[in-house]
Amino acid sequence: MILLEFSMSPMDKGESVSDQVSRSLKIIDESGVPYKLNPMGTVLEGEFDEVMGVVKQCYETMRSDCKRITCGIKIDYREGKSGRLESKMASIENKLRLSRRKIRKTGI
Amino acid sequence: MILLEFSMSPMDKGESVSDQVSRSLKIIDESGVPYKLNPMGTVLEGEFDEVMGVVKQCYETMRSDCKRITCGIKIDYREGKSGRLESKMASIENKLRLSRRKIRKTGI
Amino acid sequence: MILLEFSMSPMDKGESVSDQVSRSLKIIDESGVPYKLNPMGTVLEGEFDEVMGVVKQCYETMRSDCKRITCGIKIDYREGKSGRLESKMASIENKLRLSRRKIRKTGI
Amino acid sequence: MILLEFSMSPMDKGESVSDQVSRSLKIIDESGVPYKLNPMGTVLEGEFDEVMGVVKQCYETMRSDCKRITCGIKIDYREGKSGRLESKMASIENKLRLSRRKIRKTGI
Repeated sequence: MILLEFSMSPMDKGESVSDQVSRSLKIIDESGVPYKLNPMGTVLEGEFDEVMGVVKQCYETMRSDCKRITCGIKIDYREGKSGRLESKMASIENKLRLSRRKIRKTGI
Repeated sequence: MILLEFSMSPMDKGESVSDQVSRSLKIIDESGVPYKLNPMGTVLEGEFDEVMGVVKQCYETMRSDCKRITCGIKIDYREGKSGRLESKMASIENKLRLSRRKIRKTGI
Repeated sequence: MILLEFSMSPMDKGESVSDQVSRSLKIIDESGVPYKLNPMGTVLEGEFDEVMGVVKQCYETMRSDCKRITCGIKIDYREGKSGRLESKMASIENKLRLSRRKIRKTGI
Repeated sequence: MILLEFSMSPMDKGESVSDQVSRSLKIIDESGVPYKLNPMGTVLEGEFDEVMGVVKQCYETMRSDCKRITCGIKIDYREGKSGRLESKMASIENKLRLSRRKIRKTGI
């Protein structure tokens, strides 16, 4: 399974691009693919065709009324792992919590 | 003000890198710079030197025991705007909610 | 037309990944899609399905013997422009040359 | 030593951003830091402070007349390796050439 984060913006619509971004978010939301929004992009979870299909749909829609588009995509594939949209952060936060407890106990 | 998202991983530590990542998160957490964790990275908010200083500290620490490191950084600067760690998502979610309400009202 | 830059690496093969990277380059080279190699990635030019098809083929091949893969993709779409694999750099280098000549002339 | 690729663009200057990009390139060129231009960005080689200092200078200059800036940065650190601006591509191209020769010899 893949975690794919992407952000896509028009370059020719001025400083604020939230109209175009919320239109993309609507596409993402209606795709049925599990996702999480963050201040710098959206993280999707699924197989390659599934998640890239959502990116493509956002691109085709944005292309219909934008002359220049910039898009950054980051993929993290890990064999046999699903549910990482939740578990990846939980695993790191757990380690952080444990190391804090250890610090408190040893009085450092 | 800048929103800066980054993710930094060793390339020579095998499949799981959560030890190194949680060590970075500890640095981030103790820096005092406002941040938000997501499944693909961490978003910081601050001035250039402030946020890049945190990235550098994570890099120096990881470099102490890793032979190869990969790091992706994304910066979004917007003049005169602060508090975007919260407001950027809220603005988009608001637009999405409004467009949904409109859809429901018109029965489409 | 799209310019798409990508880099894809296994996370579980240690410090040197040039075996996997050269295997990807072979796929790219045989795809027939125009491309340019640089020290940090490969830039392809074509329509969305064309360039993303090459990325997918590299991904499927790497997935066959790697347990964790990281991949970064950057897309620059510009309406109606082709041949940008060459022209984009030329345009910038030209402006740089002109501004240098101006500097030399005015003696600054 | 670090290879750092970056691209930085204003979001509020319309479709063509080559004026701002060539201004950045001038800063890069005059920095003395070894670099290579490609159609999607510029790759610098040096220590962290050196290469990030160039990015910062480009950012401060762009910020002087742009209201919104987007910037992507990719870092590849490898212990003890310098001259990779040239050698990294050469190593991969060599492997590709060797594998082609093998293919020709074995008649596959």
